[in-house]
Amino acid sequence: MVLRTAEQYIEGLRDDRVVYYRGRRIRDVTTEPELRIAVLHAALDYRLARDPQHRDLAVVQDAETGDEYSSYYRLPRGSEDLLNRSRLIEVTTAEGATLVTLIREIGTDALFALQRVVSGEALERVQAFHDHCKGRDLSLAVAQTDVKGDRSLSPSAQPDPDLYLRVAKETREGIVVRGAKVHTSVSVNSDELIVLPTRAMGPDDVDFAVSFAVPMATEGLNLYASSYSAGSRDRFEFPLSSKAKMLETLTVFNDVFVPWERVFVCRQPELAGPLALTFVEYHRFTAVSYKLPLVDAFVGAASEIAEMNGIARAGHIRDKIAHLIAYAETVRALTEMAAYRCRVDERGIAYPDPMTTNIAKMTFASQYHASLAALQDCAGGLLVTGPGDEDWDNGDIRQVLEKYFRAKVPAEPRLKMMHLISDLTARDFGGYHAVLAVHAEGSIEAEKLQILRSYEDGRTRSYVRRLAGIDTE
Amino acid sequence: MVLRTAEQYIEGLRDDRVVYYRGRRIRDVTTEPELRIAVLHAALDYRLARDPQHRDLAVVQDAETGDEYSSYYRLPRGSEDLLNRSRLIEVTTAEGATLVTLIREIGTDALFALQRVVSGEALERVQAFHDHCKGRDLSLAVAQTDVKGDRSLSPSAQPDPDLYLRVAKETREGIVVRGAKVHTSVSVNSDELIVLPTRAMGPDDVDFAVSFAVPMATEGLNLYASSYSAGSRDRFEFPLSSKAKMLETLTVFNDVFVPWERVFVCRQPELAGPLALTFVEYHRFTAVSYKLPLVDAFVGAASEIAEMNGIARAGHIRDKIAHLIAYAETVRALTEMAAYRCRVDERGIAYPDPMTTNIAKMTFASQYHASLAALQDCAGGLLVTGPGDEDWDNGDIRQVLEKYFRAKVPAEPRLKMMHLISDLTARDFGGYHAVLAVHAEGSIEAEKLQILRSYEDGRTRSYVRRLAGIDTE
Amino acid sequence: MVLRTAEQYIEGLRDDRVVYYRGRRIRDVTTEPELRIAVLHAALDYRLARDPQHRDLAVVQDAETGDEYSSYYRLPRGSEDLLNRSRLIEVTTAEGATLVTLIREIGTDALFALQRVVSGEALERVQAFHDHCKGRDLSLAVAQTDVKGDRSLSPSAQPDPDLYLRVAKETREGIVVRGAKVHTSVSVNSDELIVLPTRAMGPDDVDFAVSFAVPMATEGLNLYASSYSAGSRDRFEFPLSSKAKMLETLTVFNDVFVPWERVFVCRQPELAGPLALTFVEYHRFTAVSYKLPLVDAFVGAASEIAEMNGIARAGHIRDKIAHLIAYAETVRALTEMAAYRCRVDERGIAYPDPMTTNIAKMTFASQYHASLAALQDCAGGLLVTGPGDEDWDNGDIRQVLEKYFRAKVPAEPRLKMMHLISDLTARDFGGYHAVLAVHAEGSIEAEKLQILRSYEDGRTRSYVRRLAGIDTE
Amino acid sequence: MVLRTAEQYIEGLRDDRVVYYRGRRIRDVTTEPELRIAVLHAALDYRLARDPQHRDLAVVQDAETGDEYSSYYRLPRGSEDLLNRSRLIEVTTAEGATLVTLIREIGTDALFALQRVVSGEALERVQAFHDHCKGRDLSLAVAQTDVKGDRSLSPSAQPDPDLYLRVAKETREGIVVRGAKVHTSVSVNSDELIVLPTRAMGPDDVDFAVSFAVPMATEGLNLYASSYSAGSRDRFEFPLSSKAKMLETLTVFNDVFVPWERVFVCRQPELAGPLALTFVEYHRFTAVSYKLPLVDAFVGAASEIAEMNGIARAGHIRDKIAHLIAYAETVRALTEMAAYRCRVDERGIAYPDPMTTNIAKMTFASQYHASLAALQDCAGGLLVTGPGDEDWDNGDIRQVLEKYFRAKVPAEPRLKMMHLISDLTARDFGGYHAVLAVHAEGSIEAEKLQILRSYEDGRTRSYVRRLAGIDTE
Repeated sequence: MVLRTAEQYIEGLRDDRVVYYRGRRIRDVTTEPELRIAVLHAALDYRLARDPQHRDLAVVQDAETGDEYSSYYRLPRGSEDLLNRSRLIEVTTAEGATLVTLIREIGTDALFALQRVVSGEALERVQAFHDHCKGRDLSLAVAQTDVKGDRSLSPSAQPDPDLYLRVAKETREGIVVRGAKVHTSVSVNSDELIVLPTRAMGPDDVDFAVSFAVPMATEGLNLYASSYSAGSRDRFEFPLSSKAKMLETLTVFNDVFVPWERVFVCRQPELAGPLALTFVEYHRFTAVSYKLPLVDAFVGAASEIAEMNGIARAGHIRDKIAHLIAYAETVRALTEMAAYRCRVDERGIAYPDPMTTNIAKMTFASQYHASLAALQDCAGGLLVTGPGDEDWDNGDIRQVLEKYFRAKVPAEPRLKMMHLISDLTARDFGGYHAVLAVHAEGSIEAEKLQILRSYEDGRTRSYVRRLAGIDTE
Repeated sequence: MVLRTAEQYIEGLRDDRVVYYRGRRIRDVTTEPELRIAVLHAALDYRLARDPQHRDLAVVQDAETGDEYSSYYRLPRGSEDLLNRSRLIEVTTAEGATLVTLIREIGTDALFALQRVVSGEALERVQAFHDHCKGRDLSLAVAQTDVKGDRSLSPSAQPDPDLYLRVAKETREGIVVRGAKVHTSVSVNSDELIVLPTRAMGPDDVDFAVSFAVPMATEGLNLYASSYSAGSRDRFEFPLSSKAKMLETLTVFNDVFVPWERVFVCRQPELAGPLALTFVEYHRFTAVSYKLPLVDAFVGAASEIAEMNGIARAGHIRDKIAHLIAYAETVRALTEMAAYRCRVDERGIAYPDPMTTNIAKMTFASQYHASLAALQDCAGGLLVTGPGDEDWDNGDIRQVLEKYFRAKVPAEPRLKMMHLISDLTARDFGGYHAVLAVHAEGSIEAEKLQILRSYEDGRTRSYVRRLAGIDTE
Repeated sequence: MVLRTAEQYIEGLRDDRVVYYRGRRIRDVTTEPELRIAVLHAALDYRLARDPQHRDLAVVQDAETGDEYSSYYRLPRGSEDLLNRSRLIEVTTAEGATLVTLIREIGTDALFALQRVVSGEALERVQAFHDHCKGRDLSLAVAQTDVKGDRSLSPSAQPDPDLYLRVAKETREGIVVRGAKVHTSVSVNSDELIVLPTRAMGPDDVDFAVSFAVPMATEGLNLYASSYSAGSRDRFEFPLSSKAKMLETLTVFNDVFVPWERVFVCRQPELAGPLALTFVEYHRFTAVSYKLPLVDAFVGAASEIAEMNGIARAGHIRDKIAHLIAYAETVRALTEMAAYRCRVDERGIAYPDPMTTNIAKMTFASQYHASLAALQDCAGGLLVTGPGDEDWDNGDIRQVLEKYFRAKVPAEPRLKMMHLISDLTARDFGGYHAVLAVHAEGSIEAEKLQILRSYEDGRTRSYVRRLAGIDTE
Repeated sequence: MVLRTAEQYIEGLRDDRVVYYRGRRIRDVTTEPELRIAVLHAALDYRLARDPQHRDLAVVQDAETGDEYSSYYRLPRGSEDLLNRSRLIEVTTAEGATLVTLIREIGTDALFALQRVVSGEALERVQAFHDHCKGRDLSLAVAQTDVKGDRSLSPSAQPDPDLYLRVAKETREGIVVRGAKVHTSVSVNSDELIVLPTRAMGPDDVDFAVSFAVPMATEGLNLYASSYSAGSRDRFEFPLSSKAKMLETLTVFNDVFVPWERVFVCRQPELAGPLALTFVEYHRFTAVSYKLPLVDAFVGAASEIAEMNGIARAGHIRDKIAHLIAYAETVRALTEMAAYRCRVDERGIAYPDPMTTNIAKMTFASQYHASLAALQDCAGGLLVTGPGDEDWDNGDIRQVLEKYFRAKVPAEPRLKMMHLISDLTARDFGGYHAVLAVHAEGSIEAEKLQILRSYEDGRTRSYVRRLAGIDTE
């Protein structure tokens, strides 16, 4: 019952989990060189908890037992808890080179949502599982998005019944599940996997309304990690992606058995929608928190490279930087405001204001690509025409580069900043960020829908009726 | 030493002020029918202070003397004061049919700025004038923008020296000023006029660095009120502009004498920039506060008319309403956040966070016209092809209109809502709001400049340097 | 069989037509002062045909008979006809102070569409009616948009059957129609009224599928003209709207009898959709042609006022002007290209390329409000705070205005330009243009739909399949 | 004097050129595996000239001699020549997997510009060089952009005089040049290199005003090819970038000798600006021509993947596709119109209309990132979380993927289309396209400047003056 070290976390991943990567089975995810980058990156979470500078934010002491545990596991009770959670996520991501670690954030988002939605014995199971994870300082992944097949058809209307994860059998001891989830982040390097339904379910979809948790090394659970951005990367040319990596899997359940004490929802379609939605509301708050270092990096990088290039005084550059600042700081202000305006449900659990959270997320997502263009514009074509690490490492070539890539500053810092921006916006890591901006934690369309749902329109509608003289004259 | 009634305020305007409107001198601004609309609209400020529902927000009791005074005169000491001020402005504007009264807001913005910028004896004069206004519960206008002549030239380089207001003479008793200000709001119906410099001044511009206050009925002070939107308006067709009006003047100073106790800045060019800027920062916070009922009206009106037309379920309509909500609520969140993040200067005077305030204002201004288009899109062409009050008042015609303009609701509420939207977006009142969105309280360019100035870029710049491995490796 | 003069056109409007305006019946639309503005504005069409400068564009000589007739009546046979038609519309609108006359354009759009869609005897009737109008040099209005009631319901599902115009009775001599159309432009001052269905109709809507033409002074046909922008306007303050006006009516058919030779479609729901669509395709081409003077005026006015104010060199002003140019010239290039790419149907009738036409229209409509904001930004707050004609007519006041509103140019041209921009963007006339941009000739949504329909996606889809290696490997 | 084969082109590249790539000297650019991709891609130009399907577009027969030569070398005399050139560029790029070959386009852009700007003996040298290249069917690169050092300083004000390419010495036989150019495309795989000045030069910059041509294997000419996107790529996962590649170099001139017959401009600063500008105008027309397959691919890919995912009917997807169509087709229409509106100079050389060309380019560039976001939105997160070629090649894994990635179509075409979109938008190749959109052929700022310069504002300015009653009353 103690906070684990980064090494203990890593050691814990060396189990019988079934992981495939680049066409082959990986026996130890902590030693395979590319997966190891993701493991080390995620381990940051454990390192920060022992870093005196971040300890106050990262660790909580249980008032009763005196035990310390990761702040992520604190069930939020009000604005301050949510603000602290947001700041911890922001700080960790900033340390993580603009990439969230996610091995605690998403899992606790799911745990909070479960504790707000399920009842009775199921709630007790969730709480027990929460205590289990908290007490062992575990890392967690969440599998929510089903592969979905033909998206114009409902789960039960798919030709292959396995295209949404489903309860294949119920027994006295537990359930057997079958199907696959996709886009499952950090499953390769987490201890436990929580499964949630992906959407609202109708009465025909009863078998697909299922939520549970299993250890990653469970029989029948197969992880197929995406090879997107595979390959090794030098730190000079890839200052971010050489050390920050997150892995997504196709997560296949081949008749996986789950004992009842780990089953939270089973064949209750009425809970599927509320659970999916409650989770995503927490998770979007997590998202806008972890996007802050990224948008900050846009502002800083645009300012730095413009200065280095000698164009910082140009009117159109200043215009672009002002917009980048407004972008970053609007997302930040809305994120903070979502915490300030938090609501507390009848069980005493706080959640960020849904409308404000969704506006924050939509603002981030819908202006992301324009911001990316602005940053690329400040940097210049060298983003894709410049020299790489092998050139830099050759002394003769470096001499030429030093002469000709000097601008307002020497070539080295300028090329380093250029590579940072290239990594951030014009290569795989940048593509990953861009696609995540559009798709992760729900699409812009989903956010619009939630803005419409969560906005209480009575106030403004009665206001205009009064202005128009409809109700009062 | 007591709060005045609306009637007392109106009575106070019946003095020797020199006002021209539509080509002729107006002897009594409280009885001329069109000016009277502006007077009655502004009087709302006094009415609300006596309204039990708003009294708590609108009135403050002096802790020492027990005297009550208008909340506007409370020098802000922290977030709560600023939040309350913002809410009072919002509430008053909401009651004022989306149009701010401005007879207290702008003047106190100026008083706060003066108390932060000037020193010594001048500060005492400002404080005395503040007490004078507070104690008599006066209304105030502010003349800041000079006519400026050729804007590519500095004040002293203009061919006519009067194109920026200037100190023409100093005497033992006071100063004599000459020149003109423009866009001076609420001067026609305020008690006092505060004059501020419009911009930073260089050493050549010493004569133009002047700030003072005079009663409106001062000799040589001539107000030429704009005839924009002149004419009478029926309440059916013009539900807003028939009762809400603000007047701007060309404000000419023909050798106006100002006694020293009313002079705050005289020939101190070094104070001109700081004063202009400090004022506008308070004033932009006022602005985003008074814009909230307007953006709320956009949301409410779009929702109502879409429902009335029977198109509320259409995808593109829902998309537009979601964007209108995000627009309104982003401005609101940023406004509140500017108060939460307020700063307190060394004199103990609080001011809203400049960066957040300017982002709020820029967000409002730069998305205004797109929002207007969205609202017009939800409403339909009837905005400019529908019947007017004279049609409606003719029983035979009304019968036809009632038959054919019925939609999901009867014709009457629908036409009323249509007229509201037309008044708000497609006629003089709408044009006034639109031009104010772009120009009032400084342009979008000015706001960008302030965002750049007030953003502390050290944090993000050192972050990216660290990420790029520049400073640390 | 000769071209009429403007006076003959005007004289022709003095008949028994039933027009209501501002609550009362108007017996002579050519003398009522406000309606007369619209009449004189539309008469421009006839004046230009006799103006040597425009005659070549405006008049066609029949190759067989040698008779001259208005170019509008020329059935287009290829690109050149369409380009000439577009140029004539552009030139006329430019002369008409940015407002289209529409008394020939829309009617011939309808005649062309009818000749492409109907067949057999009905086609002969249309051709006879075309010859009738051409031979008598008539003016035409088109009533298409029904009042529609609850827009979520189909025509036949409305509680009141009259909410879409319908065939109430068929007799040996003709049909009797009942119901109302709305947004009917130029009906007050045209000779004939063509009626078209507003949308595709299903089998239940058989009674609503009707198209015909009637003289404006037909019994039972009542026009209720909109009072939007009523009132007289001085030319100094309202340089455009004092002389350019278009009127829309609620057009009520109280059991109007139409003889068979004037009936083009009767109870043929299968023709309703094609006819509505074919008409609107011609009409959108008309629209983008008549928008060109308006977008040109935006460019010119922004350039002029910026120069006059002395800010023409400012970076952000140049940026705005560049965008206004790109806006105007993109619409122009697309309009021309729609004619270049015209198609010719099996009857030999040419029509502008639907995809290009709809992109032109959507480009115009979707960037209109942003362009309006850019122009207002270049002009300044004086748009709504400046003096009016009564001020200017008072010599003493004018002296003050001349002194203080001088900028890089004297006050007079500057104020005139300011009033032009105010009329164009910030008052009723500007509101009219803005709402028309969004709603006239179909909404942006309708244009998107047509873009999707008319785009032949086979080319790009097979291209990407080939690129992806799907079809070829 | 005959058209070369692709093999002859490749063989021609095996000379003594000095090329560095990934830190080492490459002796044979045609065999180094990664450079070879670029060589083979560019060779397409020669293949198409012998392809019966494209021959008519790609080859011209000299009217006098009967010799055939590449159409690229035809000096344009009117619209048709420009349209054909544009179509050839478009077709070649379409065959080249959205990537232009550029080995003829840019060089002839430079040759046309030189023939419009220089005079006398220099013109004869240019013409002789043109004939030389045409007669030998050579490939050409152009080095224009200097490394520029501190961009806030002029060429002569740089601390190191070599930061703009300069004439270091003049001799009887020729000149010696020193310095470096950057972003030089296709230099690695072209026969000749044309050098142009990068910007207007003042009298202090006389040494930097230089233009000439040299064979690539010239002593002292060193090419440092960018390692951006280095590494091998499988065709399943990278359908575009596995076979389409363009290389940019830092192009260093270490006292390179150029004989006089190859010198076109020497120390004539007055020619630098006109030459830079004339070149870029041709080159922007080339650019918008070669962007068409790219924007077409966006439309096609969005349509295909939406259909495959089963979301093609969703309103927001249709909205995005409509915008992508409007984007692609507006660029195409403007490009064609630039050719239709071409101008012919006094030497009889045609050039595309500068205003229309620049609007086309600005439209492409300023909407690129938004279009990219739209396409990514249609595709889904699988762009960055999907399986790669090594997974697909493992039969056991493939079986799992085939089961779970089936949607409306089987997994294989869907994953292929997903990889196409990923390659196009979310990986190195996509980053390359995105940065080129912003920076290649001049920035958006440069395009705005040219729009302002080339727009003849007399027409619209006199129009508004007339409307405002300024000039005529």
